[in-house]
Amino acid sequence: MITLFHCLSARSFRPLWMLEEMGLPYDLKVMPFPPRARHKPYFEVNPLGTVPYLIDGDTRMSESAAICEYLGVRHGPTPLAVSPDDKAFGAYLNWLHFGEATLTFPQALVLRYSRFETPERLQPQVAEDYAKWFHGRLRGVDAVVGASDYLAAGRFTAADISVGYALMLAEILGLSKDFSPAVAAYWARLSARPGYLAALAAQDKAAAEQGIGPTFPPDMKAG
Amino acid sequence: MITLFHCLSARSFRPLWMLEEMGLPYDLKVMPFPPRARHKPYFEVNPLGTVPYLIDGDTRMSESAAICEYLGVRHGPTPLAVSPDDKAFGAYLNWLHFGEATLTFPQALVLRYSRFETPERLQPQVAEDYAKWFHGRLRGVDAVVGASDYLAAGRFTAADISVGYALMLAEILGLSKDFSPAVAAYWARLSARPGYLAALAAQDKAAAEQGIGPTFPPDMKAG
Repeated sequence: MITLFHCLSARSFRPLWMLEEMGLPYDLKVMPFPPRARHKPYFEVNPLGTVPYLIDGDTRMSESAAICEYLGVRHGPTPLAVSPDDKAFGAYLNWLHFGEATLTFPQALVLRYSRFETPERLQPQVAEDYAKWFHGRLRGVDAVVGASDYLAAGRFTAADISVGYALMLAEILGLSKDFSPAVAAYWARLSARPGYLAALAAQDKAAAEQGIGPTFPPDMKAG
Repeated sequence: MITLFHCLSARSFRPLWMLEEMGLPYDLKVMPFPPRARHKPYFEVNPLGTVPYLIDGDTRMSESAAICEYLGVRHGPTPLAVSPDDKAFGAYLNWLHFGEATLTFPQALVLRYSRFETPERLQPQVAEDYAKWFHGRLRGVDAVVGASDYLAAGRFTAADISVGYALMLAEILGLSKDFSPAVAAYWARLSARPGYLAALAAQDKAAAEQGIGPTFPPDMKAG
């Protein structure tokens, strides 16, 4: 059985979404955010205290986009993975990495320096620098999803989950108001998917059963 | 022919190192850093202006760790890639992503807010926050390379290139003085490799031929 350690709507939403899209069975452990401060026993599972954390037999993983890639290959075959002999393989890998490394980290800075830090440590300039940075990099997505429904191989893949989570986080942070029309339409397509909605429902159900509050962070629910 | 757009010792060093380790032929285009400001024609190649950029037939890629993964699969077979049926496949993917998403972005913040910004926009607190963050995450590497020479599969792979570049950048930024003994010894193993030294020599040679200054950034050469 696959076990996924998760915080509501945090990066660990990527593998949760992937699991739902693939229809795989899994055990979801929901923790308050950030577990580093609010759920110390987690350090025994993942000494870094970061989410996600996946346990699958002897495999242990902490990088959300890597987990999506792994699940597609090791628990496939699935149309969500793009195979090495497909001409879109390079684009698929690129967007998988891009969603996290290029589109999510800047938003973590916006979150930290506009909301999480104590008042005297807030840094509006940094939050603004990286909101701008995020929107600049998003132009790479805009250039593709204006002409195609999905990022790679002409179909929905794990690459769309990787980038899609960055768009979900942008919505939570209030950055989605500056999406281009093509990116907004792309995000509307992704967030209407049964797999996405099932992942939202699964995290709410697990959180309710495990007594974890409904939002991430508590004051930042989307919408 | 593979073409790689590169700035000296920037993230694009990862695919350069991979190309050298694999012994593949390639064409290296060196640009001043950052090309966004100092080499505007590059926008015609990569509209985002980021490095690296790889062109291989119809494939175009901009994410350094993804390119290493791609080269290992599409231009292999090579021991630098870990195959999906290997029990270390998950760890391999995880470290590939971890090297960039978790270990490099924080250092880009240190660089930006301690050196690149104009004096009134420097942010010593942010630089310090993310130097600390980097060293915290590096404990994940320490936990593995104390017991094994390499990160995954018991041999040198693209995952070591991904993390190794983060250690190279730490050396350039002066963060390597706080490496643990195990991480310092690991970095010494990586940076003594003929493939690493060949990549350093290749970038210096191409830079000299193409009239690009020798350091990244100009005042920050390692050592």
